[in-house]
Amino acid sequence: MAVYTHITDDDLSAFLEQYDIGALTSFSGIAEGVENSNFLVRTTTGTYILTLYEKRVYPNDLPFFLGLMGHLSAGGMSCPTPIQARDGKALKVLNDRPAAMVTFLEGVWPRRIQPAHCRSLGGAMAAMHLAGEDFEMRRENALSVESWRPLLTSCGLPGHEIYHALYNELNVELGRLESEWPTDLPTGVIHADMFPDNVFFLNEDVSGIIDFYFACTDILAYDLAICLNAWCFENDGSFNVTKARLLISSYQKVRPLSDKELASLPILARGSAMRFLLTRLYDWLNQLEGALVKPKDPMEYLKKLRFHQQVSGPSAYGLE
Amino acid sequence: MAVYTHITDDDLSAFLEQYDIGALTSFSGIAEGVENSNFLVRTTTGTYILTLYEKRVYPNDLPFFLGLMGHLSAGGMSCPTPIQARDGKALKVLNDRPAAMVTFLEGVWPRRIQPAHCRSLGGAMAAMHLAGEDFEMRRENALSVESWRPLLTSCGLPGHEIYHALYNELNVELGRLESEWPTDLPTGVIHADMFPDNVFFLNEDVSGIIDFYFACTDILAYDLAICLNAWCFENDGSFNVTKARLLISSYQKVRPLSDKELASLPILARGSAMRFLLTRLYDWLNQLEGALVKPKDPMEYLKKLRFHQQVSGPSAYGLE
Repeated sequence: MAVYTHITDDDLSAFLEQYDIGALTSFSGIAEGVENSNFLVRTTTGTYILTLYEKRVYPNDLPFFLGLMGHLSAGGMSCPTPIQARDGKALKVLNDRPAAMVTFLEGVWPRRIQPAHCRSLGGAMAAMHLAGEDFEMRRENALSVESWRPLLTSCGLPGHEIYHALYNELNVELGRLESEWPTDLPTGVIHADMFPDNVFFLNEDVSGIIDFYFACTDILAYDLAICLNAWCFENDGSFNVTKARLLISSYQKVRPLSDKELASLPILARGSAMRFLLTRLYDWLNQLEGALVKPKDPMEYLKKLRFHQQVSGPSAYGLE
Repeated sequence: MAVYTHITDDDLSAFLEQYDIGALTSFSGIAEGVENSNFLVRTTTGTYILTLYEKRVYPNDLPFFLGLMGHLSAGGMSCPTPIQARDGKALKVLNDRPAAMVTFLEGVWPRRIQPAHCRSLGGAMAAMHLAGEDFEMRRENALSVESWRPLLTSCGLPGHEIYHALYNELNVELGRLESEWPTDLPTGVIHADMFPDNVFFLNEDVSGIIDFYFACTDILAYDLAICLNAWCFENDGSFNVTKARLLISSYQKVRPLSDKELASLPILARGSAMRFLLTRLYDWLNQLEGALVKPKDPMEYLKKLRFHQQVSGPSAYGLE
């Protein structure tokens, strides 16, 4: 829960004068959101989201993110559409921070995941992968396999005896991931953070996908592997194979996976678990006093990693 | 900035089934707000505010607050209108907390007060006082003169040597307020917390008044005295007599003040300064570790109190 940067009505009104979207009628800070400051802004023409990008987003990446959202919207995907100012630019500055106005999307993200959510999610993700095929910009995944060892090192686990077992376990797994990570799978634009709070639903259908600030060019099936972890485990740690099957099969109805992609799902799921485990671990060990956002439990992802380590193949995900 | 109680989409959808306002299409927690948890809720019929009442609001007071908002709305005032559920009740329960849905008001509260805001505010407040005349419920002001001594005592200032001078100053002032507090002025429904963040404007006109959770039956001119403190001092502590004159004169155009009311403004303003000084002092001295809301500076109100102590009469507020 966080609004890091506060804005005044006068500053916002002046900011809106750069756009053709009418005059300010109302705004409020949105309590959700971890990385950036978000405001719900109403004008005489409609409802918008204003995002002020905080320190965790590199300004140089913003043209990619905003360009991608514009490209996907133009391709018919329901995602926030960046609003261009009168000078044609979507990236502006407010209160010394990079800022962008995007369209508001109806829908609510599901707190309790039902199998039907996973069914709709798979198709929406595949459609996003197809819509991204002709997007010309590229952005390397800064949080893929090459980054994990430096990230593990920066956690400084060996310095604490209580973390020695964890460090050893992750170190062994990292070695395997580094040597077995697939290099010949189809790549393209992936969302790379499609957790439930980034997917809006109306009834049981995806109504919109938000938060493209980890999007990058990477293995398409890796996006699906992220969702296996983020959507298909129950709160008690058990893996719901029905959800996994619906997720993957509905994806395949829109974009069929090759045998190679299917066979790689377990290693991709292990990598995805490692990625979120490491960033959560880093945040956990580097909590700021008085921080607005409580770090997420890294150990949840250790359990998920161990699950994928013991599967014999993609059949563990409900596939025949 | 605070949402104290989180709600799920399923719980909110089920909650909305009690009302005739359509199905949930979107909701987000509002970062502003100190006392309660507020959510902006969109349904297929419109936009609403959902409030979950947290511990600082006494459940027994809620029928007065909601009844008042309904009464003032029916009287043509722009304030949140409580939505009745199908059973005719506006007060419900969600996540074990009293909860109410009210209409959403357009407008933004002014971060930088201009004289024109005070001009519109005075008329709106007077109209509210008139609209409240035939409201039949009563609620004593739990934060008026009788409460201030117990509040000062509970701050425990004498136990800390650095607070002795402050305690002595407040103790002397309290004695004067207790003996000189007017008892024969017109009373009625007052808002009692009409700070800038509770008044919405479109352009320079009041578009709505919100947050009636301190409203009570008390001296009408006391509401104006609260605004003298909350709207007419600059950030550097100086008193802006133009704002005060516009506030009071526009009030008088709708509801003329008697000579007695005018003559009482300085003591009412001192009382108002004491009331906010004491509650801020209490919150300051009783800050909770990890609290979401940073307490406001009590000393701002000591300076305001001293200003009103030295005025010779209502002419200090720009009146002829």
